[in-house]
Amino acid sequence: MKRYRGYILDLDGTLFRGDQAIPGAQFFVGQLRKKGIPHLYLTNNSSRTPGQVAEKLRRLGFPADAEQVFTSAQAAARLLTGKGDRPRVYAIGEEGLLSALQEAGCRLVQEKADAVVVGIDRQFCYDKLKRACLEIRAGARFVGTNGDRVIPSEEGLLPGNGSLCAAVAAASGVNPVFTGKPEPLIFRYALERLGTSPEETLVVGDNLETDIRGGRDAGMDTLLVFTGVTDPGDCHSSEIRPTHALEDLRDWNFF
Amino acid sequence: MKRYRGYILDLDGTLFRGDQAIPGAQFFVGQLRKKGIPHLYLTNNSSRTPGQVAEKLRRLGFPADAEQVFTSAQAAARLLTGKGDRPRVYAIGEEGLLSALQEAGCRLVQEKADAVVVGIDRQFCYDKLKRACLEIRAGARFVGTNGDRVIPSEEGLLPGNGSLCAAVAAASGVNPVFTGKPEPLIFRYALERLGTSPEETLVVGDNLETDIRGGRDAGMDTLLVFTGVTDPGDCHSSEIRPTHALEDLRDWNFF
Repeated sequence: MKRYRGYILDLDGTLFRGDQAIPGAQFFVGQLRKKGIPHLYLTNNSSRTPGQVAEKLRRLGFPADAEQVFTSAQAAARLLTGKGDRPRVYAIGEEGLLSALQEAGCRLVQEKADAVVVGIDRQFCYDKLKRACLEIRAGARFVGTNGDRVIPSEEGLLPGNGSLCAAVAAASGVNPVFTGKPEPLIFRYALERLGTSPEETLVVGDNLETDIRGGRDAGMDTLLVFTGVTDPGDCHSSEIRPTHALEDLRDWNFF
Repeated sequence: MKRYRGYILDLDGTLFRGDQAIPGAQFFVGQLRKKGIPHLYLTNNSSRTPGQVAEKLRRLGFPADAEQVFTSAQAAARLLTGKGDRPRVYAIGEEGLLSALQEAGCRLVQEKADAVVVGIDRQFCYDKLKRACLEIRAGARFVGTNGDRVIPSEEGLLPGNGSLCAAVAAASGVNPVFTGKPEPLIFRYALERLGTSPEETLVVGDNLETDIRGGRDAGMDTLLVFTGVTDPGDCHSSEIRPTHALEDLRDWNFF
């Protein structure tokens, strides 16, 4: 069986649920570290900065620093500044998105934007929707960090960024380019960061539709764990086939 | 040629544009009044009360009282209370919607709603979206006053209620039942109010996709005027055929 030289790891539902580490996950990441295997934490959540995500991981018992975290917000920032551009961006989002855009060299503006970037924003309102719509209709590019329509929470399923983007798309008549999972783009950026090739890298996640579909579409092997949103039944009825599937990370053998 | 006994009139783009009466429109409505032909002003705008709409009409030179106005908000209220029900309603909307619901006997609530009703709301925000989503997921019926994705304005095309409903639909996983044009429902309610049959009633409007489509689907003859959103080119490329089409209302002959 194949030995992977790089690992791309999903967070919620794979390593932890809410504020609780999932059994076996800490040992699993500890083994990656011990064996010196490069690994990257990859998240669709655009609201937190990599530093904040790393801090949460450490609090839950996972070794992590900010450079090992890559977010859909960073992917959006990378997409807009890849050629050394410093675009004018009208952003709807929280701290993780705004700081990712600024760090990459985007200029945050309220008008005459080259691009509108939308990430989850608990301060989303009609005036922001209106501004986004007018800017896109005036020619700005429309980028969404991720298309997840809902976010699981203790209160139930809450509106995710895909729902905010649905409003902007309806009002502007333009569909967004998404940068988060399952888009191959974010996996390509993750591989750049890891320094490994798709063939030698494994994507680990709990979501067949984002982690596994996206990893597969970016040319990587995949490991699905049943500790989050996807259960074995979903798996059988889907055309998406993970390379490996396990109850949880305790059963993984690094070979 | 047919002589109609009742007229259903669209407002914006048909009788006025912004704060300006369209040439011939005042004379046209004046003739209806003079000849004693019942007519009803029918609007998808849920933000104003019938009294406010009538006041604007009078200001622009059209004879009108509140009873001659019927809105998509009133259609939503009628739908929910038609059997004498007094449902618990979580409403997103402005004065026109809130007062229509209350006048019809709905109880406005923040939780445990039987129905979520969404109309245009310039105070729309994430918390309202979240509340709507949780209520619908808990079993509340989802009603949208109208599906118009944009509203023409002097600033350009602004987000309409269809865009707000797109966010709620994405987050809740449920599509709304719309009550405004082009839904036949609002035309049926309008006919009840007018007291005429579909066969003897004419729908007059500037929008092929809402006024003309809806009037046709409700079994009425239609008159399209080219003083608003639809131009003769749109008309030729559509499968929807108005019974009559005119440059403006100056050319209408009542026979």
